[in-house]
Amino acid sequence: MASITKLTLCLVFFLLLSFPLTLSSPLHLRSSKNAPRFLADFSRTINNSRPLKYSKYRYETRYFDQILDHFSFSDLPTFRQRYLINTEHWVGSGQLGPIFLYCGNEGDIEWFAVNTGFVWEIAARFGAMIIFPEHRYYGESMPYGSREEAYKNVTTLAHLTAEQALADYAVLITELKRNLSAQACPVVLFGGSYGGMLAAWMRLKYPHIAIGALASSAPVLQFEDIVPPEIFYDIVSNDFRRESVDCFNTIKKSWNVIASEGEKNDGLLRLTRTFRFCKKLETADDLSNWLSSAYSYLAMGNYPYPSDFLMPMPGNPIKEVCRRIDSCPDGTGILQRIFEGVSVYYNYTGTVDCFDLDDDPHGMTSGWDWQACSEMIMPFASSKNTSMFPAYDYNYTSEEELCLENFHVKPRPTWITTEFGGHGFKSVLKTFGSNIIFSNGLLDPWSGGSVLEDISDTIVALVTEKGAHHLDLRPATAQDPDWLVDQRTAEVELIKGWLEEYYEKRKATFDL
Amino acid sequence: MASITKLTLCLVFFLLLSFPLTLSSPLHLRSSKNAPRFLADFSRTINNSRPLKYSKYRYETRYFDQILDHFSFSDLPTFRQRYLINTEHWVGSGQLGPIFLYCGNEGDIEWFAVNTGFVWEIAARFGAMIIFPEHRYYGESMPYGSREEAYKNVTTLAHLTAEQALADYAVLITELKRNLSAQACPVVLFGGSYGGMLAAWMRLKYPHIAIGALASSAPVLQFEDIVPPEIFYDIVSNDFRRESVDCFNTIKKSWNVIASEGEKNDGLLRLTRTFRFCKKLETADDLSNWLSSAYSYLAMGNYPYPSDFLMPMPGNPIKEVCRRIDSCPDGTGILQRIFEGVSVYYNYTGTVDCFDLDDDPHGMTSGWDWQACSEMIMPFASSKNTSMFPAYDYNYTSEEELCLENFHVKPRPTWITTEFGGHGFKSVLKTFGSNIIFSNGLLDPWSGGSVLEDISDTIVALVTEKGAHHLDLRPATAQDPDWLVDQRTAEVELIKGWLEEYYEKRKATFDL
Repeated sequence: MASITKLTLCLVFFLLLSFPLTLSSPLHLRSSKNAPRFLADFSRTINNSRPLKYSKYRYETRYFDQILDHFSFSDLPTFRQRYLINTEHWVGSGQLGPIFLYCGNEGDIEWFAVNTGFVWEIAARFGAMIIFPEHRYYGESMPYGSREEAYKNVTTLAHLTAEQALADYAVLITELKRNLSAQACPVVLFGGSYGGMLAAWMRLKYPHIAIGALASSAPVLQFEDIVPPEIFYDIVSNDFRRESVDCFNTIKKSWNVIASEGEKNDGLLRLTRTFRFCKKLETADDLSNWLSSAYSYLAMGNYPYPSDFLMPMPGNPIKEVCRRIDSCPDGTGILQRIFEGVSVYYNYTGTVDCFDLDDDPHGMTSGWDWQACSEMIMPFASSKNTSMFPAYDYNYTSEEELCLENFHVKPRPTWITTEFGGHGFKSVLKTFGSNIIFSNGLLDPWSGGSVLEDISDTIVALVTEKGAHHLDLRPATAQDPDWLVDQRTAEVELIKGWLEEYYEKRKATFDL
Repeated sequence: MASITKLTLCLVFFLLLSFPLTLSSPLHLRSSKNAPRFLADFSRTINNSRPLKYSKYRYETRYFDQILDHFSFSDLPTFRQRYLINTEHWVGSGQLGPIFLYCGNEGDIEWFAVNTGFVWEIAARFGAMIIFPEHRYYGESMPYGSREEAYKNVTTLAHLTAEQALADYAVLITELKRNLSAQACPVVLFGGSYGGMLAAWMRLKYPHIAIGALASSAPVLQFEDIVPPEIFYDIVSNDFRRESVDCFNTIKKSWNVIASEGEKNDGLLRLTRTFRFCKKLETADDLSNWLSSAYSYLAMGNYPYPSDFLMPMPGNPIKEVCRRIDSCPDGTGILQRIFEGVSVYYNYTGTVDCFDLDDDPHGMTSGWDWQACSEMIMPFASSKNTSMFPAYDYNYTSEEELCLENFHVKPRPTWITTEFGGHGFKSVLKTFGSNIIFSNGLLDPWSGGSVLEDISDTIVALVTEKGAHHLDLRPATAQDPDWLVDQRTAEVELIKGWLEEYYEKRKATFDL
């Protein structure tokens, strides 16, 4: 058996990326770097270290010369935006074949493409073209020619924003349609997690470009004080409590045990051994963060069937974590129970001998770190009473300080709601906007920041009690429970309705 | 009597600004500088040379530290955005008093404030606060500390765009409301001409910030091939033809006469004398452009009553132009007739002895020149058959060359429709968006690029047959015809409806 090396760490990243809205635990070590983030690191590893397994989806890879700053006329170089395209099912522009556009999020677009089976699976029955454009500053879509140059400093990173990414998609699809004489072909947007936020925002900001959007697990309301900052960790905690109150309590108690153990003589060494780290822990907080991350990812990936791609996890993994924690022989210490439990996440196959906490201690490692320090300012806190995590309050001032220190950027904490809305979302959209599906699973901690009620007849919420992070977008499996099949059926029906309405209106216009 | 000096030229600018979407004739001398533009020059003169006459509107002048680039995180200096505010009628945040926000356009905001009497006149009955924020790069709202610095080069001008201006308004009003604890107070947008375009776009892009928009004479469709490029000059021409076919024909014939006269020995001298220029004409084209501008401005300002502010014009000025052209004694030459006619525009009071063609031959003189060379790419052409102007086709390539040459900027001719829509505007907005009034007068040549039909129950067109450029926004006068009074009444009723709906929905939410 191998120790966890950099290569296996890549595997961890692969897994983490399966829940793109990853969250490094903002426990004690709360730096902007540990604020909610995606894992752009992944985008550097996918091509170098591992071929994609999911070659069952065929696509052509193309590149588009994209403007770096859509909203100003600075004399900046263009960059090559990558996009994946599949036209094999497309019925063509003559029949107004629809175009399914997935709003690429924070990572290599090939990874999102192969993990968004839903879009590929429904394209044939709609006669749809499929396009997966890559988000700027991720994967191969690097301004200034290379990742190194693009991530060099605040000036080069300046244009990594959601608005610019949306404009990229708008310009790309407009140009593509023009080249195909497909201007009249309806575009339907898809996106999961941050990609879901982009899909919803794009439908709202560019209704002339897309007729509707499926925004899966999109926490568009996780800003300012729109939802309570405790909601994320409360949901993670509830995911554990619903499996076992004992399990919840064991975890809740563990933090103090870890902290006090860490303060004892040789305590860190004992913690290192109990949790089988390859190198000695430097602080007890490192362990707490490592555990906290695992719990959050387990909650996001709390799927009803085993997800065995890249990094194996059982179905209902939290049930398994709690089973292991609870079923230790009487007299087993808390720390040993925690280790048994978290191994479901970090070592389900049992092939890992020791774990590595290696991480880049310097900022700027991932694009999401930057985004989380500039415009994606999502407040998080942990409730003393309802969370199983250590309690802490949200402190914007210290977040800002860390962003200034690490990234030399001053966050704009109220910008996203100014630009995209959020406050009074429901009442604003009741008479404005249409054709958005907000799909969520209530086990997903990000559902707390999403839209869980119908806003109007055409802006609807599809909520499953037992779903996790954008489960609906994943490829169909034989083990899919009925409620998941039903959710996807409802989505297909709604999309069908948007398209039918579009064609009818067009026909009516031509008949006039 | 005085000759036209630089001071009196300022007066001309004042008048021109009464039709903010001014259009330098794109006749022979079609450079980006002569593309449709506003007159930012004015913004330099208002405070220096002339006090505002319309002090009957009281407001406080305030400044707001505004972010220069909302869509990127470049480390740029903030700038002082000026805004005018009046709260004397505001019923306060406790009563959810509405906020009327005029979207400042391409000039000094004080000028727009005093020429938008409608907003001031209706504020009291709505208990509304009034805000006139100034458009960036105009008036006193200069990035980089001064006009000279802001207009220095392509880098400093880069952030003069409509999207940035809209974001300015969004950030300003959000911050202002927060400071006043007025977050729940509904905002209604107003704007005329380019300001009307901004108002409509802002309602579409920021529905969470404003509940509705009155977009007066807003040519949101004057892009690409959405409307025929000939429409502007066709409408100007029709304005003349409806008064007199002879007049139309005289003007139509005059261009060749001018051109051939200009080619003769001493022809330019004779033209100079006939048209009483202070200095000798350098080309016959200069004269043609001078005339062409006048006809276009006469059409925009073809109001039913004398508009005597700053530069006097009679009511129905085109009727007067044609009366003079047609009523010359038999045997009067074409050029003399044209001179008599155009004097209605350039010298109605008869106090000007000679005219001055002085103009800055170098680009970068006005912000609108820049905007027209970067994103506001509006195609114009003149039809051989239906226009009274010299025929010409739209030639994008030469426009681009001139923009590159004069401003070192490459235009983005498809960007505005990508960002704001335009193609299929009606069908897109039929089920998307609400609460926009597109008001137009059909005598206004800009009406050709605006929305003249109802799009839905809540996106409506208010069209008057005899109205000119955003006449409805002007202060009420005793001579207002019934159709104008009716148009304004309809606007007030619609705005009232938006507000009532807002209050009802809010009440319903609180009653739940």
